[in-house]
Amino acid sequence: MSASVSPLAPKSYPDMPPIRGLRMATAAAGIKYKNRTDVLLMVFDQPAAVAGVFTRSKCPSAPVDFCRANLPHGKARAVVVNSGNANAFTGLKGRAATELTAKSAASAVGCAENEVYLASTGVIGEPLDAGKFAGVLGDMNIGAKPDFWLDAAKAIMTTDTYPKVATRSASLGGVTVTINGIAKGAGMIAPDMATMLSFVATDADIAPDVLQQLLATGVEPTFNSVTVDSDTSTSDTLMLFATGAAAADGQARVTSVEDPALAEFRAALNALLKDLALQVVRDGEGARKMVEVTVTGAETDAAAKRIALSIANSPLVKTAVAGEDANWGRVVMAVGKAGEMADRDRLAIWFGDVRVAVNGERDPDYSEAAASAVMKEEDIPVRVDLGLGEGRATVWTCDLTKEYVAINGDYRS
Amino acid sequence: MSASVSPLAPKSYPDMPPIRGLRMATAAAGIKYKNRTDVLLMVFDQPAAVAGVFTRSKCPSAPVDFCRANLPHGKARAVVVNSGNANAFTGLKGRAATELTAKSAASAVGCAENEVYLASTGVIGEPLDAGKFAGVLGDMNIGAKPDFWLDAAKAIMTTDTYPKVATRSASLGGVTVTINGIAKGAGMIAPDMATMLSFVATDADIAPDVLQQLLATGVEPTFNSVTVDSDTSTSDTLMLFATGAAAADGQARVTSVEDPALAEFRAALNALLKDLALQVVRDGEGARKMVEVTVTGAETDAAAKRIALSIANSPLVKTAVAGEDANWGRVVMAVGKAGEMADRDRLAIWFGDVRVAVNGERDPDYSEAAASAVMKEEDIPVRVDLGLGEGRATVWTCDLTKEYVAINGDYRS
Repeated sequence: MSASVSPLAPKSYPDMPPIRGLRMATAAAGIKYKNRTDVLLMVFDQPAAVAGVFTRSKCPSAPVDFCRANLPHGKARAVVVNSGNANAFTGLKGRAATELTAKSAASAVGCAENEVYLASTGVIGEPLDAGKFAGVLGDMNIGAKPDFWLDAAKAIMTTDTYPKVATRSASLGGVTVTINGIAKGAGMIAPDMATMLSFVATDADIAPDVLQQLLATGVEPTFNSVTVDSDTSTSDTLMLFATGAAAADGQARVTSVEDPALAEFRAALNALLKDLALQVVRDGEGARKMVEVTVTGAETDAAAKRIALSIANSPLVKTAVAGEDANWGRVVMAVGKAGEMADRDRLAIWFGDVRVAVNGERDPDYSEAAASAVMKEEDIPVRVDLGLGEGRATVWTCDLTKEYVAINGDYRS
Repeated sequence: MSASVSPLAPKSYPDMPPIRGLRMATAAAGIKYKNRTDVLLMVFDQPAAVAGVFTRSKCPSAPVDFCRANLPHGKARAVVVNSGNANAFTGLKGRAATELTAKSAASAVGCAENEVYLASTGVIGEPLDAGKFAGVLGDMNIGAKPDFWLDAAKAIMTTDTYPKVATRSASLGGVTVTINGIAKGAGMIAPDMATMLSFVATDADIAPDVLQQLLATGVEPTFNSVTVDSDTSTSDTLMLFATGAAAADGQARVTSVEDPALAEFRAALNALLKDLALQVVRDGEGARKMVEVTVTGAETDAAAKRIALSIANSPLVKTAVAGEDANWGRVVMAVGKAGEMADRDRLAIWFGDVRVAVNGERDPDYSEAAASAVMKEEDIPVRVDLGLGEGRATVWTCDLTKEYVAINGDYRS
């Protein structure tokens, strides 16, 4: 954890109502950190429907492999998350560690090992001593409480400077259901430090395949549209659990993603995913500013997203933002290098509401004072219109500061 | 230009012999900088064969468009290069500026406008006042000298901390010919600052189409294998000129790239291109260390190069190098995110000669002391073997330091 809290941190935290059917506990197992919790146990007293999306890395962590293998069973009774060690690139030892952890969790909670889900974040390449879980999971299960979300978010932090929680409610077939989520992440990955994990739970009664489709769709414009440093974690994990407790209130189980009753729930879920994803960006390592990059007028939405990510990942764009410089020339550069169709002479670029470039050259009415004023803000909207088609996308990133280099280069010294 | 010279700068400069048939002059036209030269004129008294490769940016500068249009003519009599303004993203004004500059150069040298080549580097989006050339090119032509390479290299510098020159000689059909080159570049692009330009000339007699094939092949493992910050310039230009003066010594004109007489020349040209490309990396903005990334055992050479660039462009790998941290976990991350086939459990990673990981986990014989000793060096070799096939590639980059952020973020303040 970093000493100083990000200036972009939320000013307050929402009250997190319990999710019926879910209890949580944290413990300090001393995996790496001292004097802080580093293990989270989530317990579902009845099997919960489960969905998950994971890193696209070709070198995923052992827990990611483990979760992918269990997902087809569709049921979750326990989730064990640890910080301080990612159990990534640990070979056979890593697999053994996930098996031992799952065994410990299964006996503690009284479920099958394929009803257990795991996530780890922290150093890569260090063998994870799963023996440290065996000792604590039993007591954690006994002490687990429904009203524990903020503590849960704290236990999975690494270089995060603040815990990340969000909650929404929605009417589903006339019954009010709740969705809660936690997340951690500050760099897309940095051994000893960050990765991106998020766990979302609802008391709604939704079939696993529907849940999976909702999550797969919801992740694209949210967690898959944020970038801190363009580096993709070996461990990124986003899971969604539905306890089904709302069935007791008469909520009819949703078995089709086409079910019109899902409309409000889907909107609430997507809003919550975006809330959590933006909290991750706002805690980006060394971040002082958040940048919202919107690309319009591209040939396709996919092209727009690729161009938006090219801008959001450009070190020169990100350092210019850190320098509060309305350096639209670097935005042109990032558009040009994205590899997607672009017509220089149709480009228009805005910082906030200030159009700085149009028709392939500086806006005749360009006001450096007005543009600079936008750059002094905490949130910097950048918009590029390509003038080619209807494709559009929005991604979020943060600035690139000396603190990012210090966090990721100086931590040894 | 930066105040302090890169610690990776060459300790000495080679003597640059003249290239028969080529004269050069520089001038201070006051385009942006004060008290320094900012214009280079290269004059070929007889039409020289010409070849060129340019940025892949979809938003190229006006001079790049101009050169591409002239290249099919295959003949060069004059080259005008300026620093301080890139004439990029300047719309119709940019095209007018290239036309006026070409007209001035053509009348100064006495050639056709399609025998003129142009390159500009500096701020993007600012209209370039080509009138500043009109005044100086005539006098420059009169004063142009063959023995002027180091001054030529200095005139095109932007954030470069040292001029970049290289020379080679080769036997071509029993006649000794010379190849000289200059380059500039420190960031792949940064308005007000850097881009990558290089001009290479030889007295060999080689047909333009052969020259173009030699250059297109030679650029891949050299200029197309270096990255400072993953940002691609709108203005990158590499040109190769052959005056043919060696014909006077009896060198038979080379009209086929298959000509066996080319072997030594090709090797010398490629060595010179690599020399110049590495000088650019060693002058990377804020660089304190050079990193040579070699990927072996990939499915194809293309896959190896993509993985090598993923490592070389990773902010987390580059900051770890800056921190002298043998952080191979970040190398695993960068391999995983490259999108090419990789088998985690076959990966092996070396820093220098120290194998830090093998078979998908930390090397049992891993010595942190030995690995850290490698990281303290100025040149850091990183090797990854994927264990999948025969594909291999090597790319070069530099570390990511707070100075990079300062150069690109603080320059306004």
